Amino acid sequence: MPPVGLLTESPEYAELPWAKLSGFQVSGWDIAGNAHRAAEDLARVGVLPRDLVDLCGDLRDRLELSMAPGIPDRLDVELAQEASRDRALLKPAQAVEALRQDIRQWQRESNLRRAAVVHLATAERCKSLSDAWQDEAADPLELLQEQSQEISLGLLYGIAAVAEGLPFINFTPAVGPGVPALQGMARRKGVPLLGNDGKTGETLMKSVLAPMFRDRALRVMAWQGYNMLGNKDGAALVEPERRTEKLANKDAVIQNVLGDAPIHTKVGIDFVPSLHDWKTAWDFIHFEGFLGARMSLQFTWQGSDSALAAPLVLDLARIALLAQDRGHAGPLTAAAPFFKNPIGTQEADFHRQMTALRSWLAG
Amino acid sequence: MPPVGLLTESPEYAELPWAKLSGFQVSGWDIAGNAHRAAEDLARVGVLPRDLVDLCGDLRDRLELSMAPGIPDRLDVELAQEASRDRALLKPAQAVEALRQDIRQWQRESNLRRAAVVHLATAERCKSLSDAWQDEAADPLELLQEQSQEISLGLLYGIAAVAEGLPFINFTPAVGPGVPALQGMARRKGVPLLGNDGKTGETLMKSVLAPMFRDRALRVMAWQGYNMLGNKDGAALVEPERRTEKLANKDAVIQNVLGDAPIHTKVGIDFVPSLHDWKTAWDFIHFEGFLGARMSLQFTWQGSDSALAAPLVLDLARIALLAQDRGHAGPLTAAAPFFKNPIGTQEADFHRQMTALRSWLAG
Amino acid sequence: MPPVGLLTESPEYAELPWAKLSGFQVSGWDIAGNAHRAAEDLARVGVLPRDLVDLCGDLRDRLELSMAPGIPDRLDVELAQEASRDRALLKPAQAVEALRQDIRQWQRESNLRRAAVVHLATAERCKSLSDAWQDEAADPLELLQEQSQEISLGLLYGIAAVAEGLPFINFTPAVGPGVPALQGMARRKGVPLLGNDGKTGETLMKSVLAPMFRDRALRVMAWQGYNMLGNKDGAALVEPERRTEKLANKDAVIQNVLGDAPIHTKVGIDFVPSLHDWKTAWDFIHFEGFLGARMSLQFTWQGSDSALAAPLVLDLARIALLAQDRGHAGPLTAAAPFFKNPIGTQEADFHRQMTALRSWLAG
Amino acid sequence: MPPVGLLTESPEYAELPWAKLSGFQVSGWDIAGNAHRAAEDLARVGVLPRDLVDLCGDLRDRLELSMAPGIPDRLDVELAQEASRDRALLKPAQAVEALRQDIRQWQRESNLRRAAVVHLATAERCKSLSDAWQDEAADPLELLQEQSQEISLGLLYGIAAVAEGLPFINFTPAVGPGVPALQGMARRKGVPLLGNDGKTGETLMKSVLAPMFRDRALRVMAWQGYNMLGNKDGAALVEPERRTEKLANKDAVIQNVLGDAPIHTKVGIDFVPSLHDWKTAWDFIHFEGFLGARMSLQFTWQGSDSALAAPLVLDLARIALLAQDRGHAGPLTAAAPFFKNPIGTQEADFHRQMTALRSWLAG
Repeated sequence: MPPVGLLTESPEYAELPWAKLSGFQVSGWDIAGNAHRAAEDLARVGVLPRDLVDLCGDLRDRLELSMAPGIPDRLDVELAQEASRDRALLKPAQAVEALRQDIRQWQRESNLRRAAVVHLATAERCKSLSDAWQDEAADPLELLQEQSQEISLGLLYGIAAVAEGLPFINFTPAVGPGVPALQGMARRKGVPLLGNDGKTGETLMKSVLAPMFRDRALRVMAWQGYNMLGNKDGAALVEPERRTEKLANKDAVIQNVLGDAPIHTKVGIDFVPSLHDWKTAWDFIHFEGFLGARMSLQFTWQGSDSALAAPLVLDLARIALLAQDRGHAGPLTAAAPFFKNPIGTQEADFHRQMTALRSWLAG
Repeated sequence: MPPVGLLTESPEYAELPWAKLSGFQVSGWDIAGNAHRAAEDLARVGVLPRDLVDLCGDLRDRLELSMAPGIPDRLDVELAQEASRDRALLKPAQAVEALRQDIRQWQRESNLRRAAVVHLATAERCKSLSDAWQDEAADPLELLQEQSQEISLGLLYGIAAVAEGLPFINFTPAVGPGVPALQGMARRKGVPLLGNDGKTGETLMKSVLAPMFRDRALRVMAWQGYNMLGNKDGAALVEPERRTEKLANKDAVIQNVLGDAPIHTKVGIDFVPSLHDWKTAWDFIHFEGFLGARMSLQFTWQGSDSALAAPLVLDLARIALLAQDRGHAGPLTAAAPFFKNPIGTQEADFHRQMTALRSWLAG
Repeated sequence: MPPVGLLTESPEYAELPWAKLSGFQVSGWDIAGNAHRAAEDLARVGVLPRDLVDLCGDLRDRLELSMAPGIPDRLDVELAQEASRDRALLKPAQAVEALRQDIRQWQRESNLRRAAVVHLATAERCKSLSDAWQDEAADPLELLQEQSQEISLGLLYGIAAVAEGLPFINFTPAVGPGVPALQGMARRKGVPLLGNDGKTGETLMKSVLAPMFRDRALRVMAWQGYNMLGNKDGAALVEPERRTEKLANKDAVIQNVLGDAPIHTKVGIDFVPSLHDWKTAWDFIHFEGFLGARMSLQFTWQGSDSALAAPLVLDLARIALLAQDRGHAGPLTAAAPFFKNPIGTQEADFHRQMTALRSWLAG
Repeated sequence: MPPVGLLTESPEYAELPWAKLSGFQVSGWDIAGNAHRAAEDLARVGVLPRDLVDLCGDLRDRLELSMAPGIPDRLDVELAQEASRDRALLKPAQAVEALRQDIRQWQRESNLRRAAVVHLATAERCKSLSDAWQDEAADPLELLQEQSQEISLGLLYGIAAVAEGLPFINFTPAVGPGVPALQGMARRKGVPLLGNDGKTGETLMKSVLAPMFRDRALRVMAWQGYNMLGNKDGAALVEPERRTEKLANKDAVIQNVLGDAPIHTKVGIDFVPSLHDWKTAWDFIHFEGFLGARMSLQFTWQGSDSALAAPLVLDLARIALLAQDRGHAGPLTAAAPFFKNPIGTQEADFHRQMTALRSWLAG
C-alpha cells in the first residue's frame, strides 16, 4: 500500500510512535449487509484498480466474517439486513450493551492490544437531546436508562466505545463527541474524542481558500457551493432531515473565517446517481477588491468520496491512539484539520488548524 | 476610499503606527507619457466606476504635472515620449544621478517627510550582471561607473532609491533587491528592501492551494496554469525574453511547497487584447490519492490586474516605512506574502508567510 | 448603436423589409415606477458604458413621460407605484380596456404607423385557467366578463394587444400566446403571436449542445444546471410559485432533444444579489460513450441578462411586424429559436429551429 | 457491445443496409509492435472495464497474429519494432507494393468480402508535395516512381488502399484524401475517400458552439483553447513539426463559421503524462453583445480519446462501404461532421454538416 493520502506516513512525522498499519485489523457494524460489495463497486466506477480488489479478496472475506449487525433507524428497518432488524427493536441501553459485547468479542477473537471506534455511517436524521445531556457530570449510561428510542444512533456507538475505554472518532455530522455528558465520561475514562464530520472535499477547499480572502482584505460578497454525489450518502442526503446538519457544517466555515460582515452563502447537495463515488463540486466566489472592483473565483473539485475519506480514517485512528498513549482524555482539538465542525474550537482556517496539529504532534 | 483590499487597514493591525493614507502623495517616472489615460481606460472596461474617475480628475492633473521621464530600454526608444528618449542615451551612472535629482525635487516640492520607491514597470528583458555585483561589500555607485548600458533598468531605480535613503520595493520580476551589492548598500544606509514580483492572482492561488495537497499527503502529478492578460503587461510578455523570469517565479511555488518528487508543471501567459485589465487564469491540478485514485481540481480566476495590485503597493509602502522606522535595513523577508519570488526566504507557502508577517508586525 | 446582437441586422437578411430601428419608439407599462433608474443601474455594474447612458438621457426622459401604470399582482400591491395600485383594483375586463386605451393614446401621441406589444415582466405566479379558454372559438373579451381577478396578468396584455390588432410577443414564462382562445382571436384579427419565454443564456446553451450528444449517439446520464441571478427577476424567482414554470421550460429542452431514455436533470436558480444583472450559470453534463466510458462536459456562462435580452426583443418586434405584413395570423412557430418554450412546435434543437426560421425568412 | 457512441446504430438509420458489426474483422499495420498492450493500458486508467478487456483476450490474440509491420518515419526508426525497421528502408513505390500485399493477404486469410482502410497514426511531420500531385489526371503509382522517401506516410497507405479498390478514411491531420492525384485515382477506381482528421472533442465543441454566436449575432472577440493529452499522441505533438497541421485544423473552424471579422484565437496542446487517455480541454470565449456588453463562456471537456474516436472509426467504415455500394467515387463531403478539416467543403458548422449527412443518408 503506497502511503499517498496519509499524513501520518509523511517523512515529517516518521519519528512518532504510530500504530503500525500492517498490524491494523478492521471489524465493524453493518446495517445493509453488503459491505463485501463496496470494493467491487469502486472498481466498477474506476476508483480502485480491479487488480487491487482481486488481490484483497481474502481480506474482504475475513472482514465479512467478523461483521456485526448495525443499529438501523426505525424508519429504515426495511432497508436493513435481517440481523440488523432485530437490533432496531432494542432499547437504547440494550443497544449500547450489544455494541459493547461486539467490541469485546472482536478484541478477544483477534487478540487486539489496542482499538479505536470510528463512526462512518450515512448522515442520520436530526434528533434532539434532553438538557440532561448538557451536563458533563451526568453519566450517559444512566441517562440512557430513561431514554426513549429517539436518540442519535451515532451517540450510542460513542457511548459504547468510551465505556469500553476506546477512543471515539465521529466522521459524520451527528452530535457524538460534542455532547457534554459524553465528554465528561471520556475525561473520566481517559478516552480521547475526535470529530465532527470528516472534511474531505469542498469544505476542505473552503477552509483553505477563505483565509486567502481574509489575508488580502478582499470582501467576499457571495460564496455559492454546489455539490453532486451519487453514492448511498448522496441518496440519503435527498432527505432534508439528514441534510440540515451537514449543510450547516459546510456553510459555517466561511463566516467563521471571514468574520462579521454578512456574506451571501449557499450550499447545495444534489444526488446524481451516475456519478456514484465521484463527488463533484462547483463553487463560485464573488468578491470585491480595491475601489469596488468586482471579481470572481470558481473551482471544480472532482474527487472520489471513498479515496478521500479512507486515509483520513486511518490517520485519525493513529492520532487517537497516540493521544490516548499521551494520556489525553476528552475532546482533541488538535484533530481539527480533519473535520468540518471540529469540537472544542471555533478555528475554521485550515492552515491555523494545521499549525495547531503540528504543534501538538511535536508535543 | 473604502479600505477593501488593504491588509494594513484591517482592524487587526489598527494599532500600528502606519503612515496615513490621506497624507500620501504619488509621483513617478513615466516612459510612454500617458499615465493620465490609465484611469479612463479602467473605467471604460468596467474596473473603476466612471464617477470615481471623474471625481479624481484634479488628483490626476496634479500627478501629471509632477511626473518625470522614465528610462526606456534602448530597444523600445521609439515607444517612449520625447523626454524619456533623451534618458535612454544616458550612461547608467548618469541615469541614476538623474533619478536621484527627481527624487530630491519631489521631496522638496511636496515638502515630503518620508518616501518609498516602488518599481512597477512592465517585465523587462533579462540582462546578466557581472560577478562584481555578487559582493555585498561592493559599492553599486562605483560598479556603475564601469557598467555599460546593458544593465537591468529596475536596478538603476533601486540604487537611486537606496542612495537617497528611501526603501525600495520591487513589484516586478526584475533582479533588484536580490542583488547582493544592493543589499549591502541598503544595510549600510539603513534602508529596507522588499521584493520580488507582486503576487496578485494565479500565483497567489498556487501558494494557497499547494499547501493543502502537502498537508493531506496527496500527490500532485500535474499542475497546468494558463494565464490570459490583455493590458500592456500582457502585450510585453509576448516577448520570450521578458516572459522567462516571470514564468519561472510563477512556476517555482509548486515545487517549493510540494518538495522533491518531480511534478509536471506548466505556466503559460497569453495576450488576449479584449480582456484588457481583466486577468483570467485557468489552472488544472491532477492529483493522486489513496490507493492510486486519480482526481482533479480546476479553478478559474477572473480579476482586475490593477485593482489587485494597487492595494498591495499601498500596503507595501506602509510596511516598508514601518520597517525603516523600526531600524530594519536590507531585505525584509516578512514581506514574503506579497511576492512571487520573495527575497531572503525559500518559504512559498502563503500561510506560513502570513504567520511570519503577523509575527513581525506584532513586533 | 452598433448592430451587435441583432440577427435582423445581419448582412444575410439585409434585403428584408424590416421596420427601421431609427424610427422605433418605446412606450410601456411600469408597475414599480422606476424605469428611469434601470440604465443607471446597468452602468453602475459595468454592463453599459456610462457615456452611453449619459448620451441617452433625453431618450430616457421622453420614455418616462409616456409610461403608463402597469397592473400589479394583488399580492404585490405594496411594491407598486401609486398609479399602478389603482389598476390592481380593476376587474380583468376593465383592466384590458385600460390597456387598450393606453395603446391607442401612444399611437395617437406619437403618430405611430405600426406597433407590437412585448410582455417583459418578471415571472408571475402560476394561475390556472378555466376550460373555456381551451376553445379557439371562444372570445377572450367575453370570457373576461365572467373572470375573477385571479387570471394571468400576461394574458391581459396579450388580449389588449390582439384586440387592438397588434402582434403580441411573450418574453416571459407566462401562458400568453399558448392559450387557444387567444390564438383563435389572433387568427380572426390577423395578428401574429410569438412566445414563450425568451431564450438568452443557459437554456440557449442547452438547445445548442444537446443536439451534439444526440448526433454523436452519446448517452447523457445527467445534466445539472445551476443558475445565479442578482436582479429583480432573480429576487422574484425565490418564490417557488413564480419559479416553477420557468424551471420547467429550462429543463424540458434536454428531454425533448435527447428523447425517450430517462435522463437525470436538475435546474436550479439562486438569487445572488451581488451579481446584479450578471447572470452566471454552471452546467455539468455527465455522459457515457463507447463501451461504457464515462465522460463529462461543464460550462460556465457569464452574461448580462439585459444585454442578452434587449436585442432579441428588437429582433422579435421586427419579425412580428414582418409576419403581420406577410399576412401571418396566430402562433408564429418560425420564431422558435428565440424562446425556451416555443408555441406550436416540440422542436427544441436550436439549429433545427434556426433552419426553420431561415426558411421562413427566405419567404 | 452496446451501441452507445455509434451514429450508424441509431434507430433513425436502422433501415440502411449497414455492414454488420458482428462480421467486422480488424487487421492492421503496427510500427511499435505493442498493440496488444493498448487495451490493458485503457483498463488501467479507468477507460475500459477490466472485465471487458479480459473477455476480449481471444480477440486481441487473434488481432496480434494478423498484424503487419507499419512504415516508420526514418527519424523514428529506433522507436519501431524490428519488422518495421526494414520497411523504413523501402522506396515509396516498394512500400506501397508491400502494403498492397498485406491487404491482399488479409482479404485472403479471412475470406473478406469487403474492406476499408482507416489511417489512424499519430500526427506525422509535415512534408511538402511536388506540384505534380496537384493534377487529378496524374497516376499516383507513377508519381511514386520518381519520389524520394520524403513523402507523407499517410499518403502511401491511401494509395495502397485505392489501388486495391478499398475506401480510404484519413482520421489524422495528414494530407491524404485532399491530394488531387489521389482523388483522381479514387474517381477512376470507384473508391470513396473520407477525411481529414477525426473531430472528437474540443474541435467538435467549437463547430457546435460557434454557430450559436453567429446565429445570435454576438461578436466573438477571443477564443482561447487549451488542450491537454497524456497518451502517445500527446507526446508526439510536443514536436512543432507534427503539431502545426493539427492546430491549424482545430483553429480554422472558428473563423470559417464566424466569418470575416478578425477574431483573436489560440489553440494549444500540452502533453500531460498523468492524464494518459483522458483528454482535457478548457476553452474561454470572450464575446461582445448589445451596446458593447462584454461576456464570456468557458467550458471544460473531459473525455477519453480512445472511447471518443473508436465508434467514429466504425461509423466511418460503414459509411464508406455504403458509399461504395451506392457507386460514390472520390471525396465524400457528406462525411464532414466526423472531421476537423473535411475535404470538399468549407462548411465548418456541425449542424449544417449533419443536415448534409442526413440528406445523403436519406439517399
